[in-house]
Amino acid sequence: MKAEIIAVGTELLLGHVINTNAAEIARMLAEIGIGVYHQTVVGDNEDRLARAITTAIERPDGIDLVILCGGLGPTEDDLTRETLAAVLGLPLERNAEWTQHLHELFEKRRRDLGHPGGSGSGADLRGNDLPRNNLRQAMVPKGATLLPNTRGSAPGIYLHQERLTFVLLPGPPEEMRGLMREEVIPRLARHLGQNGGEAVLVSRVLRVTGIGESRVAELLAPLLEGQTNPTIAPLAHPGEMHLRITAHASDRERALDLNEKVARRIYAVLGEAIYGEDEQTLEAVTGELLLKQGMTLALAESCTGGLLSHRLTNVPGSSRYLLGSIVAYSNGLKQSALAVPGELIAREGAVSAPVAEAMAQGALALCGSETALAITGIAGPGGGTEEKPVGLTFIALAEGEHLESHRYRFSGEREEVKRRAAQAALELLYRHLSQRP
Amino acid sequence: MKAEIIAVGTELLLGHVINTNAAEIARMLAEIGIGVYHQTVVGDNEDRLARAITTAIERPDGIDLVILCGGLGPTEDDLTRETLAAVLGLPLERNAEWTQHLHELFEKRRRDLGHPGGSGSGADLRGNDLPRNNLRQAMVPKGATLLPNTRGSAPGIYLHQERLTFVLLPGPPEEMRGLMREEVIPRLARHLGQNGGEAVLVSRVLRVTGIGESRVAELLAPLLEGQTNPTIAPLAHPGEMHLRITAHASDRERALDLNEKVARRIYAVLGEAIYGEDEQTLEAVTGELLLKQGMTLALAESCTGGLLSHRLTNVPGSSRYLLGSIVAYSNGLKQSALAVPGELIAREGAVSAPVAEAMAQGALALCGSETALAITGIAGPGGGTEEKPVGLTFIALAEGEHLESHRYRFSGEREEVKRRAAQAALELLYRHLSQRP
Repeated sequence: MKAEIIAVGTELLLGHVINTNAAEIARMLAEIGIGVYHQTVVGDNEDRLARAITTAIERPDGIDLVILCGGLGPTEDDLTRETLAAVLGLPLERNAEWTQHLHELFEKRRRDLGHPGGSGSGADLRGNDLPRNNLRQAMVPKGATLLPNTRGSAPGIYLHQERLTFVLLPGPPEEMRGLMREEVIPRLARHLGQNGGEAVLVSRVLRVTGIGESRVAELLAPLLEGQTNPTIAPLAHPGEMHLRITAHASDRERALDLNEKVARRIYAVLGEAIYGEDEQTLEAVTGELLLKQGMTLALAESCTGGLLSHRLTNVPGSSRYLLGSIVAYSNGLKQSALAVPGELIAREGAVSAPVAEAMAQGALALCGSETALAITGIAGPGGGTEEKPVGLTFIALAEGEHLESHRYRFSGEREEVKRRAAQAALELLYRHLSQRP
Repeated sequence: MKAEIIAVGTELLLGHVINTNAAEIARMLAEIGIGVYHQTVVGDNEDRLARAITTAIERPDGIDLVILCGGLGPTEDDLTRETLAAVLGLPLERNAEWTQHLHELFEKRRRDLGHPGGSGSGADLRGNDLPRNNLRQAMVPKGATLLPNTRGSAPGIYLHQERLTFVLLPGPPEEMRGLMREEVIPRLARHLGQNGGEAVLVSRVLRVTGIGESRVAELLAPLLEGQTNPTIAPLAHPGEMHLRITAHASDRERALDLNEKVARRIYAVLGEAIYGEDEQTLEAVTGELLLKQGMTLALAESCTGGLLSHRLTNVPGSSRYLLGSIVAYSNGLKQSALAVPGELIAREGAVSAPVAEAMAQGALALCGSETALAITGIAGPGGGTEEKPVGLTFIALAEGEHLESHRYRFSGEREEVKRRAAQAALELLYRHLSQRP
């Protein structure tokens, strides 16, 4: 099946609300092997909505599933139900059960609001019948199925018409999500089964660090060029690259197999540049290595200002291996907390390999950890000299008696330098731990 | 002008990445009076991208601005530049300056990676020329203007063709945002001016902290309801609220005047809840107060894990007042570095007001600063109890003999609790410093 998602709402079009629904629906459809070929956003405007529906129906790539999300509310500008019925030439029929349900819902709300001292909306509602507009929510195009919504007053709608399937969903994310999970996905999966379509679509993400986007593209060019099934989509992140492999197949086993074949070829080319898969972050993978090897970690950060510590502590349970970080921004704190000799700072400068090494040893001693990372550099924009320019950074790693340090020159603005330095330090520790015999 | 935004990328279509760019572009266009009428998402597929461009051009509502975002990278599946040129029948020409720039960028990256002892990636790159694919980023459709990108290798493209304007932007949000602000919006505003639109449009942002979104909306309801010129757009950020006031006028003076009148009314309602304007962040404003009052600051962070320190050190020049942070994730480090008595932790628990206060005093003593902030809490998801649930946080502020602490209960997941705790601590210091006589 080929799907189009039409999100309805002027607030989406103007950017006041971010269209998270479309992404979430697309991911849910992918799980049962339905690919999304188009996403559109249209405002609360009858003509444009009607044209968006017509465009979807007439697409030359043969869309056969149209999901409309939003515009099922009780206000005047909620038009999705009526517009779809008009485009398809179907009359709207009142659903007796949902009408009854709406009456009960309204009665209950009125009782709940009938507390003393209630002002405004509560008082306005008392003594009124169910507003006429709310009753529109019980209307269903002839031949369609009403999908009961347990989280709100707008039900979903599911409609097969010749080669096309239409699904209408309310816009609030938790209502959309509930209806998709409980009503729509099971129906679509059944429909696919009956029609013998491609049953599944499975993705796998390989996460790469320490190698640039264009270099990855070049190394993988022979693989990327011929890709059809699975597809390989490279995506750049700060200091990282994610390669998403996606296979279509008749069942999950076969899709996993297809992905595995391509993944093996990518591993053969990129090797240890791949540090993890799927949702594994570099901080989580490094944390697992620490845990597995029974090691604790201490940090001494200067130019990264706590960012490395922040990233590591984003991982739940990181307190099991991360003892802490000394963000020694001042030279005084480098001396008092990390016991870096003042004369070393005076002789070598705070941004130097010997000071980075002394910071790592100081963190090890203060925290009593097995390993330590230290970072000292010039994040900019000020503070650079010809000899020591902005972006110059030294990173040291200590483990017991073992001590190593490296020199880097990062480009970019202040926050970018911080990000790249934190990533490089994390990568250094990851490589150190993963290469241990 | 009527705009359509076409976001390009299979990762968007499949929902692996949420389309925040379209919303952000729509909001920026609205500020200069351009309405977005359609948003579309299309995958990295030449035929479908070409059809999406054609559809935009042929819309019956007369779209005259088409913004394409994404697909300008160096990999094989980045097709936006080539596809637009093909649809419009324009040849691509090499931009000499950007070609030179790409060579320099690549040369610089190669040098930066050339540190001794570096393994893998660094060595692989040495001796290679600029990859052929990267050079595609210097190609521009005939008659178009190249918009230099200071944050990445893909430049933007700006093209007028008869009644239509096309803008091409790279997909990474910070690159898109930079080019929109610095290149696209000024050009579009000039273009609108030449075509008889309102000559200027001036925005001013009031930044609010310590008061919820719905409370702000309630307090400002009378002002928000009648707004036409200037408009007032409230935008929620984690722990903050930004109110963007935007006036259209024939000249800058008049627009500033209109904004000033509305700003005064907002200040009268929200008063000291407004901590800054425009690009001033809470960390920058607080830093300025520290500088002005000749004070230095030390931090003791537990549950925020370095985030507060990271935020403060994002401000250029913060080393003049921030001495450092002790991220005391383990109880051992709370004792060894911050001199928190072990029996106090045993008696009160690490997450308690007395421990927060002792941490603040310890940071003051260790760093020799005039002020200190300390944060201890339970970020979750584990570690909560009935008595001390996830989200419970204590924040202490010390200045010489002055010592105060506050209890909070933050909602949300781990990273959200960290964010809210860091914001609350910063706000506490800001209020303390700003209320000094």
